[in-house]
Order: sequence, then structure tokens, then C-alpha cells
Amino acid sequence: MIRDAEIAVKFQPMGKTVYVLQGTRLSEAAAIAGLVLDLPCGGEGICGKCKVRVHEGTLPPTAADAATLTAAELAAGHRLACQASVYHALTAEVPEGSLPAAYHKILTATEDFAAEILEPAISKQYVELPPPNRNDDAPDLKRLERAVGRFDADLELARELPGVLRANHFRGTVVMADGASGGARRLLDFEPGDTHARAFAVAVDVGTTTLVASLLSLTTGQALEVTTRLNPQTRFGDDVLSRIAHCQQPGGLADLQQAIVEAIDGLIEQLAVQAGADRREIYEIACSGNTTMQQLLAGIDPRSLGEVPFVPAIATGLTIRAAELGLSIHKNGLAYLLPVIGGFVGGDTVSGVLATGLCDAAGPSLLVDIGTNGEIVLSANGKLTAASTAAGPAFEGARISQGMRGSTGAIEKVVVDDRLRINVIGDVPPLGICGSALIDLAAELLRHGLLSPEGRLRTPDQLPSGVLPDLAQRLGWHGKQMAFLVAAEAEAGHGRPIWLTQRDLRELQLATGAIRAGIVVLLKHAGLQPDDLQEVLVAGGFGNFIRRNNAQRIGLLPHGVPHHRIRYRGNTSLAGAQLVAISRRARRMAEELAGRTQHVDLSRDPDFSTIFAESMIYPEEES
Amino acid sequence: MIRDAEIAVKFQPMGKTVYVLQGTRLSEAAAIAGLVLDLPCGGEGICGKCKVRVHEGTLPPTAADAATLTAAELAAGHRLACQASVYHALTAEVPEGSLPAAYHKILTATEDFAAEILEPAISKQYVELPPPNRNDDAPDLKRLERAVGRFDADLELARELPGVLRANHFRGTVVMADGASGGARRLLDFEPGDTHARAFAVAVDVGTTTLVASLLSLTTGQALEVTTRLNPQTRFGDDVLSRIAHCQQPGGLADLQQAIVEAIDGLIEQLAVQAGADRREIYEIACSGNTTMQQLLAGIDPRSLGEVPFVPAIATGLTIRAAELGLSIHKNGLAYLLPVIGGFVGGDTVSGVLATGLCDAAGPSLLVDIGTNGEIVLSANGKLTAASTAAGPAFEGARISQGMRGSTGAIEKVVVDDRLRINVIGDVPPLGICGSALIDLAAELLRHGLLSPEGRLRTPDQLPSGVLPDLAQRLGWHGKQMAFLVAAEAEAGHGRPIWLTQRDLRELQLATGAIRAGIVVLLKHAGLQPDDLQEVLVAGGFGNFIRRNNAQRIGLLPHGVPHHRIRYRGNTSLAGAQLVAISRRARRMAEELAGRTQHVDLSRDPDFSTIFAESMIYPEEES
Repeated sequence: MIRDAEIAVKFQPMGKTVYVLQGTRLSEAAAIAGLVLDLPCGGEGICGKCKVRVHEGTLPPTAADAATLTAAELAAGHRLACQASVYHALTAEVPEGSLPAAYHKILTATEDFAAEILEPAISKQYVELPPPNRNDDAPDLKRLERAVGRFDADLELARELPGVLRANHFRGTVVMADGASGGARRLLDFEPGDTHARAFAVAVDVGTTTLVASLLSLTTGQALEVTTRLNPQTRFGDDVLSRIAHCQQPGGLADLQQAIVEAIDGLIEQLAVQAGADRREIYEIACSGNTTMQQLLAGIDPRSLGEVPFVPAIATGLTIRAAELGLSIHKNGLAYLLPVIGGFVGGDTVSGVLATGLCDAAGPSLLVDIGTNGEIVLSANGKLTAASTAAGPAFEGARISQGMRGSTGAIEKVVVDDRLRINVIGDVPPLGICGSALIDLAAELLRHGLLSPEGRLRTPDQLPSGVLPDLAQRLGWHGKQMAFLVAAEAEAGHGRPIWLTQRDLRELQLATGAIRAGIVVLLKHAGLQPDDLQEVLVAGGFGNFIRRNNAQRIGLLPHGVPHHRIRYRGNTSLAGAQLVAISRRARRMAEELAGRTQHVDLSRDPDFSTIFAESMIYPEEES
Repeated sequence: MIRDAEIAVKFQPMGKTVYVLQGTRLSEAAAIAGLVLDLPCGGEGICGKCKVRVHEGTLPPTAADAATLTAAELAAGHRLACQASVYHALTAEVPEGSLPAAYHKILTATEDFAAEILEPAISKQYVELPPPNRNDDAPDLKRLERAVGRFDADLELARELPGVLRANHFRGTVVMADGASGGARRLLDFEPGDTHARAFAVAVDVGTTTLVASLLSLTTGQALEVTTRLNPQTRFGDDVLSRIAHCQQPGGLADLQQAIVEAIDGLIEQLAVQAGADRREIYEIACSGNTTMQQLLAGIDPRSLGEVPFVPAIATGLTIRAAELGLSIHKNGLAYLLPVIGGFVGGDTVSGVLATGLCDAAGPSLLVDIGTNGEIVLSANGKLTAASTAAGPAFEGARISQGMRGSTGAIEKVVVDDRLRINVIGDVPPLGICGSALIDLAAELLRHGLLSPEGRLRTPDQLPSGVLPDLAQRLGWHGKQMAFLVAAEAEAGHGRPIWLTQRDLRELQLATGAIRAGIVVLLKHAGLQPDDLQEVLVAGGFGNFIRRNNAQRIGLLPHGVPHHRIRYRGNTSLAGAQLVAISRRARRMAEELAGRTQHVDLSRDPDFSTIFAESMIYPEEES
């Protein structure tokens, strides 16, 4: 195998650079950079929505560019990202219009644009109150209420207020939070001076394996910084059920809660440092995760989530003092945990429905969130139904002998033309295989006949004739099982060969089959076929990096759906958390969506085990 | 002086016995026993409302009895308490109808009766929830809400609930509290088993000098136990302003808060022991006190109450977790502090207006609450106006050389016929003088010419002719000032003579003048004269023990008001706290009353100093 040269592609105005294989589509490079281009035509080069402007480096116009863009646009460097293949380093400017709405508003919002949805539950207002005098002996709180309207105040703050007001001559900035469940607003602080321009929130995607957090400005709605780390609870078990089991042990719940709180606290610290903000200027943390992750974060024993019928403690959104959780932000700052739909369909799924606008889809649409659990939501005939599948952490690299998360050193893409080619994140020697490359590998092995439809890696003597020599020679015994050599000893970063084993392929097959079965059952309940779906929205931390054709080939995405109806939405759990952090309308909508989405318990479907078994067989190739 | 024999009078159904001087009116004996008889005719023996039944001992019928009661009633032992004078030990039964409404309902409520107003903010309900099953995977909280309606829950409780529900097979008693400021109700606990019959609240009158607390059953509305103790904050100063001054010192506020919290906690313990209840069965504490006492209890710095224009931190009722204040009741129990009207017109006054129904009075009516501060509320033309006077603690025995509170050993009544006669609480040798006896003494000294209208104790050579020898011989020098001997060395319980000095009389004169001036200013603002008042309601811990004619003689109560329009309402601060503890309607009404009562700052009245000076002169005797 030869590691191919990688090409630097920089995106503006974000200033983000990624390294891709020669010939990579520009839209795919954008996805790797965390930018979600809108491809309504499915990347067919027709709609022109994914237009970018190349201003450093060259990118020859394609036929689709010539057909869609004006001469002036072509001359100015405009290109359709879905059609352009990258062969040389370049810098591309992504215009506002090429990002889907919700994302766009959050991630790259200009002030004008963010103003549309910006309406945070946390608000700041500078006030100058008339000091008391003999003609006006109104109480301190009343005096404040005259300026900012009715509110409640915690005892601690009521105790401080008389002193603070007088020390600052009745001038300062009122920090207010919306009341929980429609109650009165709550005073968070009265800060000396005019601090209204300094107000931040943090949004966190609390994944079973990976945590992603962003710092948001509450004055512009923009995400200023994003950072990520491994969920340290993984040391107590790599999936939800093993974490729940750990709670049976004495101190188990405390172990798990402390781990996640410390990690999120670390993310907050990192975000604050990166943005030059003070933690005390962060007034809220919005957290989106599956039901177990959210209960563990809140310190609520998740044991009832581990036994039939998997009952959550609480389904509505939860507002808690951040300090009560052990998170250090503003001393009276709040944590908001998204509402959940059921024991295994959590706040991350609510976020997904919210951020993708699935509920407003014109025709039957499916949201597939691929993570340690696979969550599926179907919007059809005005109804939302949701199911959860225990996909397991294979897609995040766990339980795969040489698996890893999509970080530096991970093989994230595999292409076979005349030979095997790999792309490694960070342009370094490979260390392991991440989820998107797993899918590529399985699909390619299937396409080239090295893998049987039942998921068995063929021995060299069982291979069909005409198999590519580069692939055939990579097959071999790895201990007692067959395996496929992805990178040889000499090429790998750690000096050990990287194998994909039969057991790894079975793990992937189970994960894929679970999601596929879930989709089939949800469609069946609605009386629909895959090709009735107008849109299949793919979400999840690594959703953007999946090759659609490969995902369809191994049955992860429905086989009958035309290519252009499959769209990537990125990390919608984070996107949803960001939306509720900057918009109380979004928060109300999340509560409403969680309430009306019907949870379908897959295991209660009498056909489920048959469907699951069938889903384990890879789909027949359409010649 | 001869100490007269005292007579035991027992009241049923309360089972309370008091000892009174021969010739004491039965209605007065009832007041000493803490029973407030309704005397709409002013004790003239006309209306028949104060009827009691004497069933042990004898009490000859009076002319008024004969005119008002039937022969059968007379034969059964019925008598008008306002007319009967007691000369022999007896037991009297007080029927429900002879107590004013609010009091009656609380203090002696039968179950039927209490049901009318009983609607506590704290409620309990035993529930048996269907456990989760495959057809019903609703979240735990939802499951509970289906049974008891929408509520909020603190994080701590949300954490415990899944375990508690399962350990108790989804059966138990829900404890719920009304939401503050119209917000959602709040879950306080889910208790194993059916505990709905065990629910208590405590009401506390947080006086500057004296604390009075009662334990209420939330299932019947009845006050089960009452207890009292000195406010230990008195060691930091005996009036409100000296306490506020103490807060200027480092740790001063903490000193004061800790003192009051410990004392109230002690009262709670005592009440629980007396009633055989567990502290954890007490779910709420309703506290009524002046604005400074309430702020000190809540730990809110009262310094702004010590400087013009005397601004309270907060005016609305305050709901706080009792544990946050350091009070040990149910772990999630609440403390409710009554709303206040202004910096010096506090929750105790709101309680008074609430408990007396002053706002619904047909004609102009006045409420005078006599304590360390004297608060006055005028209801006229549909408006409520309130004023506060710094009466000082003289009425509670402080700043009086031999003063004491109305407890065992206190001279509580003084009568002069042919000689001086005293009544001592508890029928023991006297130890000091309490407020009611102070008033008696000043009035008698004035009536008999020993005291000048300007408040000067005459020297023996200045006495008018014909002064009673028993009184004249009690005058003498006590150090450098004139004084009046109330009890000689040999008679007193501590073996020292009990003197009433010139300085004591000046102290009383100041206190009386302050209240009188306040009444005059409020009446002036409303364009009224004293004789326009349809009712003068006297409240305060010792209000029941004041002799109306004596109080009017020294100008404490308005001079022009006919005797029968003056009514005693007892400790209305405690009564109001009890009402809000057992009735959310009363709580709403308290908030409403506090909001619409207008505070009149006496010192802003340009005539105030003149009026105060005039009020210091004792009224002319109407021959």
C-alpha cells in the first residue's frame, strides 16, 4: 500500500484547514472541516446551492459549473462544491447561503442573521434605578422590578442585593433567567457596571463515547469556540448498559457523575480560555445526550433504564443550578438538560428533530443519528415516531480490534480503485480505523467479493475470480480468524500492522443490522417503503464523513432511497443544544417535540427478531 | 399592701385555668386564658354574644342575664361573660359562637368548622400508581403527575424518586407545596405508606421581644400546642434600631440570624415534643414579624431599614427552604415569611389586618398593635393606611426599672378602690411589673392626682388634698427620683421592693405618646375624628390584658371613642401566621392586603412633632 499525498483545503471565513486525498469532492472536504453544505439536489450539480468561491489555488470549472453559474461567477472563482474534485491546495470561501438554516444561524451567524432567532432564556440589561428617597420608599426588589418587570430571586441573592445596590449607587446589570415550566423569571445577578455585552452560554453534546462542547455568545448567537474530548465514563463501560450496570455497585452512580462533570468542567475551562472569557461570564450550560447520559449527569440513578420497560425518571427538560451539579460557571448559572422522549430516545434525539426541522418536512422523512446508540425518527403524516437501537460503540471505534475515534491518526476513508487507498486524519501515519472507514472497508470488501452477503470474510481459496490482486493479497489469518490488512507494519504509526478482523466485521454487521432493522420497523408501522422517503437525514458526530453509497451498500442507510435524498446534518445533538441555549422559542419547541414524539419499542414488534435477522444479511447489489 | 386571694376559673373545652382577683369580669378572665370572646356591644350586656355556660361553681345571674337569656338558659347555667363578676372558683364552657371568626376557626376549630377555611399550601395525598409495564413506559415523574397533576421537583428529590417508587411498589404519600408567585406546585416528598393524616405546620409570631409559636394540624386546621420564649436577639439590643446597628459590626447579621433561628428551632422542638409529633412531619413554618425581624430571620442585611427612607429589601411574601435558614423540620419543608407593607410596617401588621378582617369593616376602623413597635392601621373609605411608631419595649417590660414580660410573677393588673390591689400571674409573690399593670398604674396615679397631666410624679407636698392614704404613703424618693412603691420588700418574690419610678413613667409616657400621635396623624390624613371610629381593635401579645378605661385615660387608645367600640383581638400576628399556614386563600389575601395598604411616614407630616408633643400630655379627665 502506498500512502497518498494529501492536499490542504482551507475554508473561510472560519479559517479551518483540512487534509484530503487527491480527487476528494470539495463538499466532502467541507464536511470534514465541520461545515455542513446544503445539497438539496443531493450533490447532483443541479441546484447550485453549494456554491463556494475559490480564491487561493486553482479549481478548473466542471461542466455542471458552466451550466449553472454565470461567466462572471466563474471568473470570480465560484464553483459548485458538490461537483469539484480537489487536486491542489486551495482556499474556498463558504457563503452564508450554502449552509442549512439552523446550523447556519448558529455556527456562522452574522449579527443581522442571528437576531432572527436570538432570544436566549438568559438576558442581561443595564439599569440605573432612582435611589430611594423620602417620596419613594419602595423595597429594593420592587425598585428593580419597576425597571425590568416581575421576577423571583433566590434567598442568597435577596440577601446580597441591598448591599450591592447601595455600593453601586443603584446602577448595574441585571442578569435574568426564564422561569422553569412557565413560572416567574429568576434573577441570577446584579452586576456592577454595564456588563450586558459579556454574556456566554455553553452547549454540550453529551455522547456516550464523545463529548463536544461549544461556547456561544448570547449577544450575537454565534458559536465562538468548539472543543471535544472522550467521555471519561468509558472507563466504567463502553456502552449505556454497562454504565447502568456500574450504578449497581456502591458509589457507582457517584463515580459516573463525577467523571462526566469533571470532563464537562474541563471543556468549559478550555472554551473560556480559548475565547478569552471568564467562566463567571457563562450563565448557562445546555446539555443534550441520551436519556442515560442526561440522568447520570444530573446524578439520577439510571437503574430503571436498565430493566424492562426502560422508564426514565423524568421526561421534561430539567433546569438545575450548575453549581449543584458541580459545574463552575457563574455562581448562580443554570444547567438545562433537554427533554427526552423515552428511556432510550433522549435529549440528543430531540435536539436532532429540532435542529433538522424534521417535524416540518413536506413528505415522509427519516432522521438517523449514528452513535453508540442508533436513534431513528420518522416524520410522516404529521406524526413523529422514534426508535432506538443498541448499535453499540463500533461506529466510534470501540469493540473493533484496531478501532479508534475520528481523531488524528485515524484512517477515516478508504477507496479502492486499482488498489486500496486510505486517508488519515491529520496527515500522519495511521494508528487505527474510525467508523467512516469501517463502513468504507465493509462496502469495498463486499463489492469486490472478499466479504459474503452473510458477512463472512472469504478465505483466499473461496475468492471469486478476478479479485483485485492488491486486495486478495491483504487477506490472511490473524490468530484463529480471517482478517484483512489495512496498513502494514512498516506504514503504521505505531509499527504494528492494522488488521480488520472477521470479529470486527461481525461487530459492524450487528451495529448496522440493528439500525437497519429499526428503520424497517418504523417504516412498517407507518405503512411506508424506503422509496417513499423524501429525505434521509444523517446525523451523529461522524455522520458527515460517511460515504452514502457505501452506507447504502452495507444497509446502514435504506437501500431503495435515491442518492440525492440522503443529506448530512452533522452533530445535531450539539446543534440542538446550541439552539436551546440561544433561543427560548427553540426551548419551547424542544419540550413540545419531546412530548408529541411517540416512542416505538422495537422489541415489542412481533416481527422484530425476524427483521433483525434479515437485516444482518447485506443487501443484494443492484448490478 | 395585702395580696388578695385569687380565684381559679377554668375554661372548657380548652381545659385552661387562670387565677383572677375577686370581682374580675368573666370576659376578662377569658382573655387572660387566651380566649377572645366576641363583644360586639362592647361588653354592655346587650348583644348576648359572649354567652358561656357555667357548669361547676356558682355565678348568680345578673340583671343583663335576666333581660337577655331565656329561663331555660339561665337554669342551664348560661351567663353573659361581659357582665358576670367572679367571686368563687368555677368552670365555664365557651361555645363556638362566642369567639370571633378567624380566631375561632383556628384556635378551637372542630373538624366541620375548620373545613371551611382549611386549604393549606401544603397538601398530602396517598397514591397507588400502576407500576411500569411494557404497555406503559411513561417516566416516573409523569406517572406521578398522572395521579396528582403537574408539579416541579427539586433535583435532590428527582434523584431519589426512581429508587423510592420501586422500593415501595409505586405506593406512598405525595407531599406537595403550592408554587411561589403562581408558579408550578413543588413536590416535597414521596413518603412510604399512607401518611396523609400526619401533617403539621408551625406558625410563629416573631416579636422584637417575644416569640410565640403554635403547632397546627394541617388535616383539621386546629392549633394543637402553643409555646413562647424571649427573642434571644434582645441581648444585642432591645429595640429594632439597636439590632440594625449591631449588623454594622463584623458578623453582626450572622449573630442575630443565628440567635433567632436557634430560638425558633427550640420552639419547634418543644411543640413537637408536646404534641407527640416528629419534626419531620412538620412541612412548613409561617413567620410573621416586623420587617426587620423578618429580614434578620431570612439573613437579609437590614441596614437600609436603619436609614432614611427605611427601605425593605423585599416586600412580597418570601418562600424559602426551611433547611436553608437552619430550621429542622421535614428536609424539604418550607418557611413562608409574610409580605410586608414598608420598612417599619411588617408582616405582623399584615397578619393583623388579615386576622381581624379590618379591610372588610363597615365603617372607619382602627387596628392598634401594641408591642415594641406600635403599628396602627386605619381602614376608611375603602382604603387602608398604616403607620409605625417607635413605641419602644416599655409595654413589654423593658427599659422599666422593675419591668418584666407577662409571665409568672408579673404584676399584670392593678386596681385601686379603698387601697391598691394587685394581681400576679401564676398566683405567686410578685417579681416585677408587666405592660398591662404599667398602664393601670399610670392611669390610677393620674386619676388619684399622684401624677400630673404632664407626667410628673408629684412629691408628697404637691399632692392634692384627699388623696387615698394608701397611695400617698407609697410615694417616696428612690435615689434621686420620685417613685411609687408597688410592692414592699416583704411581699416581693425576690425580697426587694418593687418601685415604679419617675423615669419608668416617662418611658411609658413616650411609648404611649408615640402611639397616640400616630393615631392622630392617620385620622387627620383621612379627615376623621376619633369618634368617627366604629371600631378600635387592640392587638398585641398583651393587648387582651389592657383595661380599656385605663388605656383611654392615659391616651393610649383614642379618648373620644365610646367604650364598647374598643375590642381586643389578642396576638393577631400569630393569628395571621396561623391563617396563612392553613389557608392558601388567606395567603393570597395577605399578599393583596400588603400590596394595597398605603404606608404613611409619620415623620414626613409637617405637624408630626407638634402632635407628638401634644400627645405627651395626658388627656383631660372627663369628670
